[in-house]
Amino acid sequence: MKVSVYIATSLDGFIARKEGELDWLPGSDGEPVFDSEGDDFGYSAFMASVDALVMGRNTFETVLSFGEWPYEKRVIVLSRSLQQLPDNLPNTVELRCCDPQEITDELRESGVSGLYIDGGNTIQQFLNAGLIDELIISQVPVLIGSGIPLFGPLSKDVKLSHVETTSFKNGFVQSTYQVIK
Amino acid sequence: MKVSVYIATSLDGFIARKEGELDWLPGSDGEPVFDSEGDDFGYSAFMASVDALVMGRNTFETVLSFGEWPYEKRVIVLSRSLQQLPDNLPNTVELRCCDPQEITDELRESGVSGLYIDGGNTIQQFLNAGLIDELIISQVPVLIGSGIPLFGPLSKDVKLSHVETTSFKNGFVQSTYQVIK
Repeated sequence: MKVSVYIATSLDGFIARKEGELDWLPGSDGEPVFDSEGDDFGYSAFMASVDALVMGRNTFETVLSFGEWPYEKRVIVLSRSLQQLPDNLPNTVELRCCDPQEITDELRESGVSGLYIDGGNTIQQFLNAGLIDELIISQVPVLIGSGIPLFGPLSKDVKLSHVETTSFKNGFVQSTYQVIK
Repeated sequence: MKVSVYIATSLDGFIARKEGELDWLPGSDGEPVFDSEGDDFGYSAFMASVDALVMGRNTFETVLSFGEWPYEKRVIVLSRSLQQLPDNLPNTVELRCCDPQEITDELRESGVSGLYIDGGNTIQQFLNAGLIDELIISQVPVLIGSGIPLFGPLSKDVKLSHVETTSFKNGFVQSTYQVIK
């Protein structure tokens, strides 16, 4: 099973402003973000390689705020505080509270081959647990100064192997790294 | 006059560990960092375009710790706490305490056409004062979790225009941005 992160950050490393605002990100109205040539920054190809997503409560609530549930794939919402999911969600969405290692083992055993980890806290937990295989990070050409950081404290350095970098006409720079284990 | 930043960071945005350690950076022994093809990541070409450097006390002390003074160009050390420079430095090094706008105006008037701003605090001050024209950032493929960040709080967003990105065999990804003013 390959465990991946696919996320956009400001050049100073934030995935959102402090209250979750994405106004600095092109396409922050929830519409797909395409550049002038209709390129979706590899998002469709990446999603096609994924069987399931894991996200924390903050990211889940951001996704809910966009309106219609956007994912057809299985989604695991990790939360210790949420009691239940809204009634109107498809049955592909599950609420769980177990730890990253446990959920990863369970998903691997259930036959998932591509797993997408989303959200700052959740990504940091999975990184610290040594569970991330690949990072695909799109850097947006803006500095926002403060907000929710993609990365956080680590118990030890995480060495990476650079796979490729692509830059787009709108100024996005997307780099793919493998985590060296 | 063009005011530039040329710096390396970890992928999580640190220019050094908390006490200034650069052990995570290839070439941290003060030797030039070359990749397998002898490429110096554009450093020589960049330095050739520069007439003077401005750095803060922390960066100055890091440079001193490398031993022999490495710069032939004029260097302005900005500090409000340092009383004087060590005696053994060449007379191309000046100690100043004035603010970023003042020193920038003075250097422009003295005929400097390329100015290199170095060091986290100093870069942040110059960015916040709207004085930086260009950022050349080399991201090193490692996450170190904590340290001295390149970027900090801003009084407003800084929009950037992506100029180019080059990736190197050793995994460095170098992006050049112009600050949109």
